[in-house]
Amino acid sequence: MVNAVYFQSGGPTAVINSSFYGVIKKYQETNKIDILYGAKFGIQGLLDDDLIKIEKNKDYSFLTKVPGAILGSARIRLGDFNDPIYEKILKTVKKYSIGYIFVNGGNDSMDTADKLNRYFKNINYDCKVMGIAKTIDNDLIGTEFTPGFASAVNYIVKTIMEISLDIKSYKKGRVTIIETMGRDTGWLCASSTLANNFDNLGPDLIYVPEVAFDKQKFLQDVKKVYESKGYALICVSEALKDDKGNYIFCDNNNLDSFGHIQLGSVSKNLCDLVKKELHYNTRNIELNLMQRCASHINSNKDVEWATMCGYKAVEFVEEDNIGMVTINKDQKGDIYYSTTHLSEAANIVKYMPKSFINRDGNHITKEGEEYFSIFLDPSLKIEMLDEFK
Amino acid sequence: MVNAVYFQSGGPTAVINSSFYGVIKKYQETNKIDILYGAKFGIQGLLDDDLIKIEKNKDYSFLTKVPGAILGSARIRLGDFNDPIYEKILKTVKKYSIGYIFVNGGNDSMDTADKLNRYFKNINYDCKVMGIAKTIDNDLIGTEFTPGFASAVNYIVKTIMEISLDIKSYKKGRVTIIETMGRDTGWLCASSTLANNFDNLGPDLIYVPEVAFDKQKFLQDVKKVYESKGYALICVSEALKDDKGNYIFCDNNNLDSFGHIQLGSVSKNLCDLVKKELHYNTRNIELNLMQRCASHINSNKDVEWATMCGYKAVEFVEEDNIGMVTINKDQKGDIYYSTTHLSEAANIVKYMPKSFINRDGNHITKEGEEYFSIFLDPSLKIEMLDEFK
Repeated sequence: MVNAVYFQSGGPTAVINSSFYGVIKKYQETNKIDILYGAKFGIQGLLDDDLIKIEKNKDYSFLTKVPGAILGSARIRLGDFNDPIYEKILKTVKKYSIGYIFVNGGNDSMDTADKLNRYFKNINYDCKVMGIAKTIDNDLIGTEFTPGFASAVNYIVKTIMEISLDIKSYKKGRVTIIETMGRDTGWLCASSTLANNFDNLGPDLIYVPEVAFDKQKFLQDVKKVYESKGYALICVSEALKDDKGNYIFCDNNNLDSFGHIQLGSVSKNLCDLVKKELHYNTRNIELNLMQRCASHINSNKDVEWATMCGYKAVEFVEEDNIGMVTINKDQKGDIYYSTTHLSEAANIVKYMPKSFINRDGNHITKEGEEYFSIFLDPSLKIEMLDEFK
Repeated sequence: MVNAVYFQSGGPTAVINSSFYGVIKKYQETNKIDILYGAKFGIQGLLDDDLIKIEKNKDYSFLTKVPGAILGSARIRLGDFNDPIYEKILKTVKKYSIGYIFVNGGNDSMDTADKLNRYFKNINYDCKVMGIAKTIDNDLIGTEFTPGFASAVNYIVKTIMEISLDIKSYKKGRVTIIETMGRDTGWLCASSTLANNFDNLGPDLIYVPEVAFDKQKFLQDVKKVYESKGYALICVSEALKDDKGNYIFCDNNNLDSFGHIQLGSVSKNLCDLVKKELHYNTRNIELNLMQRCASHINSNKDVEWATMCGYKAVEFVEEDNIGMVTINKDQKGDIYYSTTHLSEAANIVKYMPKSFINRDGNHITKEGEEYFSIFLDPSLKIEMLDEFK
């Protein structure tokens, strides 16, 4: 018998606690793990010996409705094996007879999981580390999509539908630019196209980082829409880049602890550009933290997928199937769970295929819509009599 | 028998269409109005002869779930009676035998309703104009609160609870500053205190325009919270003013067609101030249009109140009880509907009483909480086991 520890890492999603629940659920069913601990504030809990014990016979299903990382998270990058951090972790791992570690996070967290695995192998210590994917960005490879993405999509789609109805209230409206997260990938931003399935309440134009952003072309696009509709609803990614690969409107020197550039303000800057060049009234809306924490509008499918990823992590580690748990579609389109190499998930960013983006670089193709259709939640529909549409 | 026309005016709320539904409901029950029309794009519909006919036997209850102003809105300020706009309106009124006009809007719209009433009296034409309150700002007098406010409160409270859980994920977090609408009054911002009824998920500090904003005092407050909790969650109104009554961080020359200053960016500027002076990481979040259009999280009470305001407008006009429909509480705390003078609703802004704000000017008093308690929606609760709180 061994014990296990689970921790959360990186930015939360609205369903990261569902994956925690999945780990607990399988733990409560299995007889191969004696005690399951949760580490507080990510890997910091292992450094500080700050663990809480999960009960074998308690109902933790409330977790599927709580946003944020309920155990606390951290953004700590592991160095090479000389880093004294490893010995500190080992001390806690030994003290609690930990044989399995579950790391619930995104790319950077998979790097952590990978390094820990290799460290234990290196010192010949029997402790296995599993990765459980978690990111609203949908940018992890080896998985059809990531837990957390579909709930962010639900928030984005519903919010855009509601904003769309709000801004249609005026005959001569504004250019409204909505900014999504997603870092270097356009998945989140592109998902806004789903709102067009509901009485065309989606954006008129969509700009993602996978296409070089051309300000002149953008202004032409906006002008065209505005002149025909009297307003324009535009969805942009937070990390648009120019044809040289540089972030537009960004301070390239402002890095976080993982060396990422601090993004933001794209929508504000684009509004200023439209105001200056086209003299239209504008409004920029950042969906901000809400897109990753609005658990009240979670996707039920996402909750199920996230829960299963946690559940399967326990199942797979017991079968010595180590890696990051992935969600895949079989040929019939049914979902199944598997694993992928942690090192790949850690270091490769999954961009949106170019074939998802139209030739004009300002909207999503049929192929893209096909991909996103699995996330379409019919419950988001806003019923209206035809004469009011 | 007479006909009637209903139109929507000013910025939408998430329940303005509920008031429309209320007007329709009473119209379908009464035999005193022959035909009810809806004017498209506010008063513009009367100028352009752009009316739609409401059916006597059709179910319009879908309206209670649709955000935005479904008929379209406008922001047109009426001048004195020499303005040729009055004759254009009169032409349409005569053409459709309109005897009752229902104006659904905020302060500026009550001004419109008041002027129309006086115009018709002036020319001795039998047409009566009723005002139906609508504003998320809660700044109309003569009414205990305004339809639209409680739904905005629901969005704000739930969103702050979710953000609160998200930002608690980090041991050393940021100073997060959330900006609400509300123009010169702090009602919306102050309502965020309700989130503290749910496991203290509300803001640590609240700043409203009714109290002169002092940057040094603000920095001291933030420092105190941050040093004790490791993060701070702050709610601010969009229109904070200094001790001379000037908007802070605002371009006082940027006016809209009603002469209002274009607000915004308070939270961003306060974040910059905190970063510069205290060197904390910050994040600003504008709740933007979502707070007035997120009908998916409407308050059921608000939908009921807004519907009743529309319903009562028809009832009152038939009884020659002209004015703006108000919502009041009797001594037992039960709601009843009445009317107030349009000219008062038009020109007087209802500020939050000073007694609602604590001595430090950074949070809400028990008396304030008592006022807001009617808006507390128990369904917003996020269930959690005690050990995770």
